[in-house]
Amino acid sequence: MCSICNHTIHRAQHNFGWNRDFPPALTAKPGETILFECMDSSGGQIGADATLETLANLDFGKINPVSGPVYIEGAQPGDALKVTINKFHPSGVGWTANIPGFGLLADQFENPALHIWTYDTVSMAPSAFGPGGKVPLKPFTGTIGVAPAEPGLHSVVPPRQVGGNLDIRDLTAGVTLYLPVEVEGALFSVGDTHAAQGDGEVCGTAIESQMNVELTLDLVKSANLKSPRFTTTEPVTRHLDGMGYEVTTGIGPDLMTGAREAVMRMIDLLTAEHGYSPVDAYMLCSVCGDLRISEIVDMPNWVVSFYFPRIVLA
Amino acid sequence: MCSICNHTIHRAQHNFGWNRDFPPALTAKPGETILFECMDSSGGQIGADATLETLANLDFGKINPVSGPVYIEGAQPGDALKVTINKFHPSGVGWTANIPGFGLLADQFENPALHIWTYDTVSMAPSAFGPGGKVPLKPFTGTIGVAPAEPGLHSVVPPRQVGGNLDIRDLTAGVTLYLPVEVEGALFSVGDTHAAQGDGEVCGTAIESQMNVELTLDLVKSANLKSPRFTTTEPVTRHLDGMGYEVTTGIGPDLMTGAREAVMRMIDLLTAEHGYSPVDAYMLCSVCGDLRISEIVDMPNWVVSFYFPRIVLA
Repeated sequence: MCSICNHTIHRAQHNFGWNRDFPPALTAKPGETILFECMDSSGGQIGADATLETLANLDFGKINPVSGPVYIEGAQPGDALKVTINKFHPSGVGWTANIPGFGLLADQFENPALHIWTYDTVSMAPSAFGPGGKVPLKPFTGTIGVAPAEPGLHSVVPPRQVGGNLDIRDLTAGVTLYLPVEVEGALFSVGDTHAAQGDGEVCGTAIESQMNVELTLDLVKSANLKSPRFTTTEPVTRHLDGMGYEVTTGIGPDLMTGAREAVMRMIDLLTAEHGYSPVDAYMLCSVCGDLRISEIVDMPNWVVSFYFPRIVLA
Repeated sequence: MCSICNHTIHRAQHNFGWNRDFPPALTAKPGETILFECMDSSGGQIGADATLETLANLDFGKINPVSGPVYIEGAQPGDALKVTINKFHPSGVGWTANIPGFGLLADQFENPALHIWTYDTVSMAPSAFGPGGKVPLKPFTGTIGVAPAEPGLHSVVPPRQVGGNLDIRDLTAGVTLYLPVEVEGALFSVGDTHAAQGDGEVCGTAIESQMNVELTLDLVKSANLKSPRFTTTEPVTRHLDGMGYEVTTGIGPDLMTGAREAVMRMIDLLTAEHGYSPVDAYMLCSVCGDLRISEIVDMPNWVVSFYFPRIVLA
């Protein structure tokens, strides 16, 4: 499956959460390439035949498994782990859900909702959603990181300075990611693969989709990085920006309130003008719309904007 | 200068701040096109020969004049003013400053700094900055809005639900902007033209540049809009995304702190790897780098990312 890989981390080699004391699934040399078999963020609980009942019975103890950890020879605290994201092997099936209690507008969307996606893994053509919507796809790793220095088990949900559940939608093939190493060997893991997501992941889920991913792991000694950074040598939005955007705004002294208002107004727009139900509009915003901070200096009011790509509605 | 305009608002026809009782400079019919002669945000105080002394003597009472207001016949509270941004006539000169007390990192950049730009108004070729940097240009209106319902004089600095100092860098030629009307006649004004800016305008100024702009003003009756929205039918970043981005992150429970950390780390990167002084890196970030909210749902930590276009450094 991977012609250039030195090793494979198999799907069974996963953990829930981060812990510096998890035994390594593999010890690798810097510069080696590894095929990681990843599970989706439900750990296989939500498949192609899932229903709202599946969602209601979700075992949250089995959420977001990460494959690994890989011990990198010579990695020391203060180094950076250089992760080259080479290639994805997508599964062709995915899901997006509104999970009660989770998401930017959890107070307004209290009922569960689920959408199952299927897509062509060769063409990666835009995938259908609701009345006329087609979402351009671009796979990435939602959770990618190394073990924190602090002992004990750490929840997989929040991202940290060492990475983890970053949900940065531009961590796609071709990107080089740098992660601050806090423990000997780095103890790298990856999972939570997504077929598409907008900046913000506003409903709390993306197009969650099982994939395998080929990564090259290398070291930058004594980089003293404070948080993850990455380099992309290609444009990041040309798969979806061809017809421009509908943009709504939230204006005021609090960025969180501004973000919520911008998204609420886009949901209103999609509902009124494009025939989506509110929860479908919310989930659609999550998989393809972007939260941006347009202005953060004109005291005391900041502008948060939500950009929805018009090509999805074409 | 404008072949399709019905009227001209001359440079002398400006105000400082917003006030529903400012007398209209013009009464226009819905659908008419108007040439607005705008001043730069210093109201002409900072010209091509400006120095740090000019900055020190800046009269803040003359900051950010807006040309207008235009009374639109038939406009009523609850309507939306539809503004079609047709064309810019740039001046070829601009400035970017670090003004003490103003900007996302004002606590860290306490000394004034000023950069004067010149650019080709026909080719609008990327404009030089510091050691090797060239910033792609795309003119837009920094301040664009209508009068608030509340009587009295309102500062021009903060944007509001009726628009104003939005500093949204995508309000460029070809865009249609919708503003909530709060007073009879709408009382539209515009100014604060910019030759380039990143999302956030992090140092507090863009490439501030005097320009004239052609706008068509129309009405959407009873739109009941809650805050500005706009439609762009073209991609928004293709003038600068061709070589991808360097990206830094700020991770934690507060979006403002995350934004500050992401920008600080980009300044560190530009300083360490590309030879900029910290304040030059800060100003460069402001004119071309973008603040995005990568994830806002993985409790309790959010990810704010700062995207710096690599083409600027090429």
